[in-house]
Amino acid sequence: MKRAAIIGGTGYGGLELIRLLDNHPNIQTEKVISRSDEGLEISARYPHLTTIINTNFYGLNKEALNNIDVVFFATPAGVAKNIIPDIQTPGVQYIDLSGDLRIDNQAEYETWYQLSPPDQSLQKSAVFGLPELYKEEIRQAEIISNPGCFATAAILGLAPLISREIIDPETIIIDGKTGVSGAGRKVSLMTHFSETNENIKAYKAGAHQHTPEIEQHLTKLAGNKIFITLQTHLIPMTRGIMCTIYAKVKKEEDVFKLFNEFFKHQPFVRIRPEGNMPQTKEVYGSNFCDIGLHFDKRTKQVVIVSVIDNLVKGASGQALQNVNLMNGWDETAGLTGIPLFP
Amino acid sequence: MKRAAIIGGTGYGGLELIRLLDNHPNIQTEKVISRSDEGLEISARYPHLTTIINTNFYGLNKEALNNIDVVFFATPAGVAKNIIPDIQTPGVQYIDLSGDLRIDNQAEYETWYQLSPPDQSLQKSAVFGLPELYKEEIRQAEIISNPGCFATAAILGLAPLISREIIDPETIIIDGKTGVSGAGRKVSLMTHFSETNENIKAYKAGAHQHTPEIEQHLTKLAGNKIFITLQTHLIPMTRGIMCTIYAKVKKEEDVFKLFNEFFKHQPFVRIRPEGNMPQTKEVYGSNFCDIGLHFDKRTKQVVIVSVIDNLVKGASGQALQNVNLMNGWDETAGLTGIPLFP
Amino acid sequence: MKRAAIIGGTGYGGLELIRLLDNHPNIQTEKVISRSDEGLEISARYPHLTTIINTNFYGLNKEALNNIDVVFFATPAGVAKNIIPDIQTPGVQYIDLSGDLRIDNQAEYETWYQLSPPDQSLQKSAVFGLPELYKEEIRQAEIISNPGCFATAAILGLAPLISREIIDPETIIIDGKTGVSGAGRKVSLMTHFSETNENIKAYKAGAHQHTPEIEQHLTKLAGNKIFITLQTHLIPMTRGIMCTIYAKVKKEEDVFKLFNEFFKHQPFVRIRPEGNMPQTKEVYGSNFCDIGLHFDKRTKQVVIVSVIDNLVKGASGQALQNVNLMNGWDETAGLTGIPLFP
Amino acid sequence: MKRAAIIGGTGYGGLELIRLLDNHPNIQTEKVISRSDEGLEISARYPHLTTIINTNFYGLNKEALNNIDVVFFATPAGVAKNIIPDIQTPGVQYIDLSGDLRIDNQAEYETWYQLSPPDQSLQKSAVFGLPELYKEEIRQAEIISNPGCFATAAILGLAPLISREIIDPETIIIDGKTGVSGAGRKVSLMTHFSETNENIKAYKAGAHQHTPEIEQHLTKLAGNKIFITLQTHLIPMTRGIMCTIYAKVKKEEDVFKLFNEFFKHQPFVRIRPEGNMPQTKEVYGSNFCDIGLHFDKRTKQVVIVSVIDNLVKGASGQALQNVNLMNGWDETAGLTGIPLFP
Repeated sequence: MKRAAIIGGTGYGGLELIRLLDNHPNIQTEKVISRSDEGLEISARYPHLTTIINTNFYGLNKEALNNIDVVFFATPAGVAKNIIPDIQTPGVQYIDLSGDLRIDNQAEYETWYQLSPPDQSLQKSAVFGLPELYKEEIRQAEIISNPGCFATAAILGLAPLISREIIDPETIIIDGKTGVSGAGRKVSLMTHFSETNENIKAYKAGAHQHTPEIEQHLTKLAGNKIFITLQTHLIPMTRGIMCTIYAKVKKEEDVFKLFNEFFKHQPFVRIRPEGNMPQTKEVYGSNFCDIGLHFDKRTKQVVIVSVIDNLVKGASGQALQNVNLMNGWDETAGLTGIPLFP
Repeated sequence: MKRAAIIGGTGYGGLELIRLLDNHPNIQTEKVISRSDEGLEISARYPHLTTIINTNFYGLNKEALNNIDVVFFATPAGVAKNIIPDIQTPGVQYIDLSGDLRIDNQAEYETWYQLSPPDQSLQKSAVFGLPELYKEEIRQAEIISNPGCFATAAILGLAPLISREIIDPETIIIDGKTGVSGAGRKVSLMTHFSETNENIKAYKAGAHQHTPEIEQHLTKLAGNKIFITLQTHLIPMTRGIMCTIYAKVKKEEDVFKLFNEFFKHQPFVRIRPEGNMPQTKEVYGSNFCDIGLHFDKRTKQVVIVSVIDNLVKGASGQALQNVNLMNGWDETAGLTGIPLFP
Repeated sequence: MKRAAIIGGTGYGGLELIRLLDNHPNIQTEKVISRSDEGLEISARYPHLTTIINTNFYGLNKEALNNIDVVFFATPAGVAKNIIPDIQTPGVQYIDLSGDLRIDNQAEYETWYQLSPPDQSLQKSAVFGLPELYKEEIRQAEIISNPGCFATAAILGLAPLISREIIDPETIIIDGKTGVSGAGRKVSLMTHFSETNENIKAYKAGAHQHTPEIEQHLTKLAGNKIFITLQTHLIPMTRGIMCTIYAKVKKEEDVFKLFNEFFKHQPFVRIRPEGNMPQTKEVYGSNFCDIGLHFDKRTKQVVIVSVIDNLVKGASGQALQNVNLMNGWDETAGLTGIPLFP
Repeated sequence: MKRAAIIGGTGYGGLELIRLLDNHPNIQTEKVISRSDEGLEISARYPHLTTIINTNFYGLNKEALNNIDVVFFATPAGVAKNIIPDIQTPGVQYIDLSGDLRIDNQAEYETWYQLSPPDQSLQKSAVFGLPELYKEEIRQAEIISNPGCFATAAILGLAPLISREIIDPETIIIDGKTGVSGAGRKVSLMTHFSETNENIKAYKAGAHQHTPEIEQHLTKLAGNKIFITLQTHLIPMTRGIMCTIYAKVKKEEDVFKLFNEFFKHQPFVRIRPEGNMPQTKEVYGSNFCDIGLHFDKRTKQVVIVSVIDNLVKGASGQALQNVNLMNGWDETAGLTGIPLFP
């Protein structure tokens, strides 16, 4: 049984890791680390864990990580990049759920994150943990940079079309809709119930930090620089992300066949049949990414609808999928729960 | 005091007309007509009207319309087109909130509505009731074809750009999000709480009947045929529509100045300053259409966010705005309520 | 036209006053005062007021209140009691929406509010602004202590039964359910969307500060000391309060007749017919208190369901109703809007 | 591996059984039976099951039940009572999730269910499947009458107090709040999103069919006839039930100690410490019943807050807990998932 430490255990990403690890055959949560809640009983902060998790939050220090095999960073941007160099130990696996190590170009990181960039050798040593594209690299990795939630839904929705040059990359539009848990547990007017319920807001116009992450990986697939437009929206639900993706088709092909072929060995991607568009509730609490497709003959536009649970495939579930691959376990271990519907 | 009859008074459009007319200085609800609820006390169907509306639903027949000055059709598609020819009386004003009279081309109507088209002379005699574009025509009209909810938000968001040839019309994408009341009061799994709450669905891919309506009016503005892509989504709220509109800019201009100029005499259109995107809750219960803009220098994309209350500016409020114009009253009469926030 | 100042204009109570006053024939908002937002444009804080309210927030000082006829305190507990003595001016009317002046007994105020009590003569000079019970006193008042939201729904639901000695006062249970806007605009985990949506919480067991307020007025009606049990719950909606009230009947009477009789001159109380229980949405945005009744012959229990919009009849609407009475205007002036449904 | 058939697989109870059984070590879903959907692919009706459940709905006939070990009835009231006599086979276990077999008294069944009562010997042969009270009987049972959702939460919240005669039974009030999934998948105005969202309704005043079920088991515990008052409310969420229970204490005791003692061997009941009231989200998707307590010294009232997920502990999870006991498996097998929070 491998032992995991979760740094940032007070937030929703850490909490979801606790839930998923509890159901895993080969790895267990050994320590939950929280600077703000050090010493507090975990179930006092999160009463739903009463009788299940009977330990306290640890503080963050090197000793706390003794005998730990896998370290998850479920922390805000700017934390992991500063801590990993201090604690890195051979043989230990590190999974960073934040954006710290996702951007190859240091200037781009600075522009979009408004933080100083990570050490370049650290960043280069991290593998982008999107198993549907980089499975072999992940199997060899020691540090994983876990993808962003919008980036996961968007890249999976575009990868088959980009890699086969079906669409004109200049026309890519990604209209993202997210549940409120994506904003984390930090309170703000943006996540204040009375102003979020019965409402929809567009936010971060031209400024969402997942933009360069999506462009970087589409560029790798295409072989030439791709720019995308990403507009994100906050909608009145807790969990779930939908990316509705639009692009002009330049080469007409059977997109259903193409997507089914592209993802045929990927257990967590489900392509819906024609006329069937996925809903976020249909992947609720699960690690699936469901994709629906429509090709409009009138306008030569393809519309791709890609949905995930932002806390699972968009964060902690994907982190665990990566750990499964890094350790040679079944890719789906601990991740086979049926979506909660309704 | 003019006397109004509302046909289709059991539905949400009719209900919202009752609410708005109750607050109007020059027109009052004389009869509420419902085939399914004939004879029933209105407040028995809608207890929130207790002590306010003390009459019963009328059945639909010619006598019921005696002495009526304004007839509203708050009926599903397929009803008004068949009834108006039978009841039309000189001097009486007819406002059809359904899509029956919106599409000039009969074949297009048939394709998108899956109904036989209206009599062509009837259709031609109806004026499209979007006051921000057709104010003078509306002032002279006897029959109004009231715009669709998505069409209202989308056309207002695009009109300045199209009429000034700022954008490449081939690149127009309209990503629409609607609250559930847009689907009306008819029960269905699509509007069943347990499957709509905490969920988002894309629906009618390539098939939304407001598509030809938007294209028809953008085409008029542009002077050449325009095709658009419209993808609609159902989100877990009752009221509100947001259209997020994307297009490639071919001529760079100050879009804020352009929009402010274009709508400067329109009391119900509010252009937000840079960096401020409107939310649906900010027009809740009101006749406003609020528009926010972002021009992305990296990608030369303009993003327009246009929000309305689907039952007010997207239906009954706009109908009343049209009646105000037809009768020479203040365009805002009965429509000055502040949005309900939060 | 009387001139009003609203102190605490950043909160939801103040905001709702702005909405209601905008529609009033005899009084208008002259100044909106906010310590935290002094100098800021009101529509920058609340974009839904764009083009409607074109002034800035004022700071709080005596000069700001020159030429003001009516001062509303839409402030948290602890503010009005300290400010009124400094600013009180003959002929000016003061309406305190907080709990500061509601509790006659100073020790009780301290126990339930955890604040030092107001000056006793100030407290005594304030009239409890529940028009359905104290209309004559309100007409003569200069200072109004506006009732709490739960207190309004609960007292109206119990007054006829208590005053006619129909029920055993020892058996009164009030199960309150409130929308989240009742907690105001201050952010907290309690009002954080992700933890409030798709959830229901019981809060303040045995400790809700409206308890002594309800007891005080039921005691006055009964002529002997009454204790009640009030348990409040937070439910995932923005507006609305429902009190489900239970009591053992000791004298069987026709409760429908009794309630209709008791409230027959009260324009904002609507008694539902047998078998028809009110819903909060049926009073949404309005000043109504709707009451439904059920008498259970098996158990001799009467169940009363009393609903209000917590921001209107539970706060700002009732404040305006009081101002109407104090000035000899129609009690319903500015308060005749139909509830927003759906 | 035991083989289960689920009759009524189109509804939410059946669907939740599919989810739970999929994760069970000793029993698997062999057939899902639906009269309305016979022959249809299950994942066509429920796309969230795509790639997980690859079979079709069966029709209901005796052959379909060959080789089946456990038959679940996830059907509306009135179905199981008529079918079981026809299909009953020695050695097969039957679990009825409906109310058909819950009421001992035939007249009572008729009164509350408005259906003709089941055959009396059939009813008597069924064991009421509330393991916290009837564990031994369940271990021996062949037919289980699975408890109602409100009944589960209410009986567990009252059992310790009744069995120890702590409270006056004449004063018991149960104020129930349920998410909308409790109403099932059948569409109706009651469950229509636009009329349920942002709203709370009281329903079935004095008429909820779980009333006699609760009384029957409290009566057994007390040894004398107990009547209760149950008022249920529909709140705008999908899953979750909260019962807030009130009663007058006649014998003061440490209720926390009492509850902890009473449930110390029950893995699914969690008693919260003083000052900590459970929320429905804290048991979301799990089989827990969490209970919080408050004793009010002022009024001698005890307030009990009992929460469950209506589809799990209130239906399918409890059904599986019963099957575990009937087969000598670990009571928690297949039911150990952590609640989904947030």
